[in-house]
Amino acid sequence: MAKVICAGLGPGDPDLVSLRAARAIGAARQVAYFRKAGRPGQARRIAAELLHPEAVELAMEYPVTTELPVDGEEYNDALAGFYDDWAERLVALPGEVVVLCEGDPFFYGSFMHLYVRLRGRVELEVIPGIPGMAGCWNATGEPITWGDDVMTVLPGTMPEAELVARMRAADALVVMKTGRNLPKVRRALAAAGRLDAAWLVERGTMPGERVLRLAETDPEDCPYFAIVLVHGHGRRPEVRS
Amino acid sequence: MAKVICAGLGPGDPDLVSLRAARAIGAARQVAYFRKAGRPGQARRIAAELLHPEAVELAMEYPVTTELPVDGEEYNDALAGFYDDWAERLVALPGEVVVLCEGDPFFYGSFMHLYVRLRGRVELEVIPGIPGMAGCWNATGEPITWGDDVMTVLPGTMPEAELVARMRAADALVVMKTGRNLPKVRRALAAAGRLDAAWLVERGTMPGERVLRLAETDPEDCPYFAIVLVHGHGRRPEVRS
Ligand SMILES: C[S@@+](CC[C@H](N)C(=O)[O-])C[C@H]1O[C@@H](n2cnc3c(N)ncnc32)[C@H](O)[C@@H]1O
Ligand SMILES: C[S@@+](CC[C@H](N)C(=O)[O-])C[C@H]1O[C@@H](n2cnc3c(N)ncnc32)[C@H](O)[C@@H]1O
Repeated sequence: MAKVICAGLGPGDPDLVSLRAARAIGAARQVAYFRKAGRPGQARRIAAELLHPEAVELAMEYPVTTELPVDGEEYNDALAGFYDDWAERLVALPGEVVVLCEGDPFFYGSFMHLYVRLRGRVELEVIPGIPGMAGCWNATGEPITWGDDVMTVLPGTMPEAELVARMRAADALVVMKTGRNLPKVRRALAAAGRLDAAWLVERGTMPGERVLRLAETDPEDCPYFAIVLVHGHGRRPEVRS
Repeated sequence: MAKVICAGLGPGDPDLVSLRAARAIGAARQVAYFRKAGRPGQARRIAAELLHPEAVELAMEYPVTTELPVDGEEYNDALAGFYDDWAERLVALPGEVVVLCEGDPFFYGSFMHLYVRLRGRVELEVIPGIPGMAGCWNATGEPITWGDDVMTVLPGTMPEAELVARMRAADALVVMKTGRNLPKVRRALAAAGRLDAAWLVERGTMPGERVLRLAETDPEDCPYFAIVLVHGHGRRPEVRS
């Protein structure tokens, strides 16, 4: 039986990879990772210094990314075929392969689509990683949740009205998949009365990291790796000293 | 100026510590960690193999844990004094100290109370870690969030009626600080119609890890390190192969 190990890489800084993931990557003779066609890919970049010099690399290039609407049938078909194909190719590999995944693999990760296709067909191991959002709130220098704070994680792909309702109800707030959705996310935060407390973290812990007050940014110009945060302010013993 | 480094240790398995945290811990000649009085402490256990043999250890023992209600004034006063004291002691140390913190330090972490007291007085560095919840959903072998899923993180300390309302509105669900709150959390999940889908992960990635369907557990017997999870089932390209 073949073995597929998915190594969570953390938010972007190679130094934030776990000891176990680093060891698995260093030992791998076959390594696969997702990327946009024609791009080097963040996962490959994070793991670069850890790769074995003789590792065979398999770049799994998304057939579509932002050209099609994510809720359309065409997008769905293209991606389903892509994951089906790669699942077959990984199963057919001789021996072990390590799949590199940014952040934590089970938290909105592309690997999950391979995982459900590989289950029962190969031996599977998933190594958790620091989610991108933890790298981002760390970059703001401010704790994200205190005491009784509720933390809500929203995908920026949601309909605007639903974003507004969720943002109103939340204490601490994380918006993932910001990128092209930033103008909508920003409007929703303003409507929910949370815009002034919101931060935008672009490329958290990656080269080119930027931490900005969302109200002061240009929402039309946002990279794929970007998260919006509103910190919680829950119950805590008062600072008296 | 003294320097305080907080090293996030991840969910419990020492192998899930990041490369940066492992290096900081190995180099430290002064190490501090929180624990319940008379207990060895999870943070100390996770870092045990990484500690320098000559490191001086400072055990910061909570003055109260579960004896007092967390929203009472007495609890608040005891803890505020405790954090004030330890902030002073860390500032007075000669040179650098590494504070060990389970999970991610900025996510409901005790270190945050030192952080706000130390800010501006010492050099501060916080190393993010894999949050306990990521270790827990990994242990269930099931992805936590897909596509447009909203993930809600609730502290089990919240009032029952509010838990129910939040649980009804959530897709993926994480309940932290379960422990003694488990009977209440379980009733709230049942009232929200989510009990059958709920998992209890005790000591995720730690020695003695248990992964159980919540409906099949005894809610009166739950350790401090325990998280309740309900997985999301959002939009995803269909598996066809
Ligand atoms: C498909 S999801 C993958 C999430 C990943 N598995 C994780 O645990 O963070 C991609 C989204 O994660 C967010 N993201 C992940 N890492 C990030 C980082 N270092 N900085 C900013 N955003 C990040 C962005 O919002 C991006 O659109
Ligand atoms: C004070 S909070 C600290 C959270 C920590 N900073 C983190 O990032 O996970 C303590 C709560 O975290 C949860 N927890 C943290 N790690 C866990 C683990 N490995 N297994 C189960 N529960 C855990 C429990 O619910 C516990 O009551």
